[in-house]
Amino acid sequence: MNRTPTDPFLPPQRLLLGPGPSPVAQEVLTAMAQPTIGHLDPAFIGLMDELKAMTQTLFNTKNEATFTVAGPGSVGMDACVLNMIEPGDKILIARNGVFGMRMSEVASRGGAVVVPLDFEWGTPVDPAIVDAALAKDKDIKFLAFVHAETSTGVLSDGKALGAVAAKHNVMTIMDCVTSAGGVLIEMDAWGIDVIYTGTQKCISCPPGLSPVSFSPRAIEHIKARKTKVLSWFLDVTQVMAYWGGEGARAYHHTAPINSLYGLHEALRRLLLEGLENSFKRHRAAHLHLVAGLEKRGMEMLVAPACRLPQLNTVKIPAGVDDPKVRRTLLLDHGIEIGAGLGPLAGKVWRIGLMGEGARTESVDRLLAALDQIMAKEHA
Amino acid sequence: MNRTPTDPFLPPQRLLLGPGPSPVAQEVLTAMAQPTIGHLDPAFIGLMDELKAMTQTLFNTKNEATFTVAGPGSVGMDACVLNMIEPGDKILIARNGVFGMRMSEVASRGGAVVVPLDFEWGTPVDPAIVDAALAKDKDIKFLAFVHAETSTGVLSDGKALGAVAAKHNVMTIMDCVTSAGGVLIEMDAWGIDVIYTGTQKCISCPPGLSPVSFSPRAIEHIKARKTKVLSWFLDVTQVMAYWGGEGARAYHHTAPINSLYGLHEALRRLLLEGLENSFKRHRAAHLHLVAGLEKRGMEMLVAPACRLPQLNTVKIPAGVDDPKVRRTLLLDHGIEIGAGLGPLAGKVWRIGLMGEGARTESVDRLLAALDQIMAKEHA
Repeated sequence: MNRTPTDPFLPPQRLLLGPGPSPVAQEVLTAMAQPTIGHLDPAFIGLMDELKAMTQTLFNTKNEATFTVAGPGSVGMDACVLNMIEPGDKILIARNGVFGMRMSEVASRGGAVVVPLDFEWGTPVDPAIVDAALAKDKDIKFLAFVHAETSTGVLSDGKALGAVAAKHNVMTIMDCVTSAGGVLIEMDAWGIDVIYTGTQKCISCPPGLSPVSFSPRAIEHIKARKTKVLSWFLDVTQVMAYWGGEGARAYHHTAPINSLYGLHEALRRLLLEGLENSFKRHRAAHLHLVAGLEKRGMEMLVAPACRLPQLNTVKIPAGVDDPKVRRTLLLDHGIEIGAGLGPLAGKVWRIGLMGEGARTESVDRLLAALDQIMAKEHA
Repeated sequence: MNRTPTDPFLPPQRLLLGPGPSPVAQEVLTAMAQPTIGHLDPAFIGLMDELKAMTQTLFNTKNEATFTVAGPGSVGMDACVLNMIEPGDKILIARNGVFGMRMSEVASRGGAVVVPLDFEWGTPVDPAIVDAALAKDKDIKFLAFVHAETSTGVLSDGKALGAVAAKHNVMTIMDCVTSAGGVLIEMDAWGIDVIYTGTQKCISCPPGLSPVSFSPRAIEHIKARKTKVLSWFLDVTQVMAYWGGEGARAYHHTAPINSLYGLHEALRRLLLEGLENSFKRHRAAHLHLVAGLEKRGMEMLVAPACRLPQLNTVKIPAGVDDPKVRRTLLLDHGIEIGAGLGPLAGKVWRIGLMGEGARTESVDRLLAALDQIMAKEHA
């Protein structure tokens, strides 16, 4: 490629079956290409209100403090953790993969005292063990966990963990980056205080935004802080003056206008399909994939009961050259799948069936490509 | 509008002549609507390298640590300030508008000891006064200032302020949100250590990204920190493992793929036009506007020598209903201009001639609309 830096960029066509980003519908791409308007334009304020209503539906919550952070899911994590904790606060972080580890890092940089509770990668967070840990240390103020671990493909039980937290009167932070839109979230019914997600997984919108929601109790807690939130940009009380519904909107930051057009269209499509139908579609694609992999003698990492339909970790067969297979899939077949992370590096592939990618046709295309590659490998 | 939250959103057509976002070329919108690919795809890594090269040209720097923060300019500010300061560090912040004030807030939340140096809004930062302040307090480690104050329309002298900082051996952080692409920046020649900008001003890309650059000395300083950067997401040493050129890219966060397609196209267009030509175009539109306003008996806030071509603050004539005129301009004429902020609220309009908006035709359209509105007002 004899490119100069000022040649136009034309991306290759890929079928995105990795851990995100997921495939994006043409309607969402087209929505993003609409003309930019101002972040205080009455038409844009209307869009923000609709985004809020759709995000409330996505999370099954009535929380007023439901909005979109202008950064990818990692910024949503920063926003949720740093608003809730103050230096010296004790937070129990259940860790069963990369993103639980990352939450620990975020919380400890924010000055919290992290109480880690580790589970084997590939297994869910055990509510009974969390219960025991909370019973043992009455100073713990928060429980944080990852609903759907993107690094392992495991679903933890948000309802049970919410109930355990309620029993011990601690507030909950739930990472829903990979769960939202793919499996059920009932923020209010489960008693979850803080949720963040990303747009590039089951919502099938390009990466770069993080829808979040804070319960009234969480907002009260933030308003009663003794110290200021460490990041001015992420301070929820400030952001809400822009996103909130109380009269005039105060300028806080310049919202990512066109990205929010895309999110509006992606959520609109998801809700028109219906969340239940989306969950069913994810499940059907997942079962089709698992059957296809098992038929080929491959084995899933995670036990059936807690498998994420949208993120499938399959053990790499013995003797297979992991990087080579993924590279061939990407460059010769135009299909992206994900590598294992941390202790699972080289041991599993992560196959995402997220949002627009959760279709049995996508699964068939992947399996056919894998068959070809494996046949050549062993030829 | 009998909308339901799941109706598609169709933005109105606006001529954006406010303080940003600025008008976006169709080519940039179309680039953003290209299919999403993965953030570790070799094709995307190539795009990142080209973005880096073009951003280096934009800032006139050879800094390796030149990349794009995945959030709007406010996040760029957080990133630059929070990476440089550690709790207890003294930072001199020159404040002549909203964004200098915001930098103080960001730095003090990060635990720095802020030494504020205030200048009247509408005037530039005076290098002689900064010199005296740095001479008086040898514990000051950093000088931070805003190159182009979006709240007042004032350009400060980056070269002179860089020289003063060098004399006292303090490191410099320069806010270039509104300056980049509209007026000259010479990061290396002026000895500026840290720069952040936004995409939605003179680069004419939708809001949501913040190109930044750190000098080798700034990176050495960050690597030698005794405390971790407060935000995991913003930690430059981590981000550089993804953006940096040393071999394999480590996953840090999911980059905002499609927004970066847009930035690539916007920078490409800017560099094909040539920075000097862009500056000239901004200046021509500005002079045309000032002549038109003065012909109508209106007065500029800022002295000619330090007026920003891209952000024009004009005093609102006596007896004119500020909100009504801006509302009529927006809703009846489709033209957005900005209100005054802080002490200038109700006293000035902020007319942005940024990027694609910096054209004499846009100025003519604005002046004609203002004439109509004013004629009705006085009828």
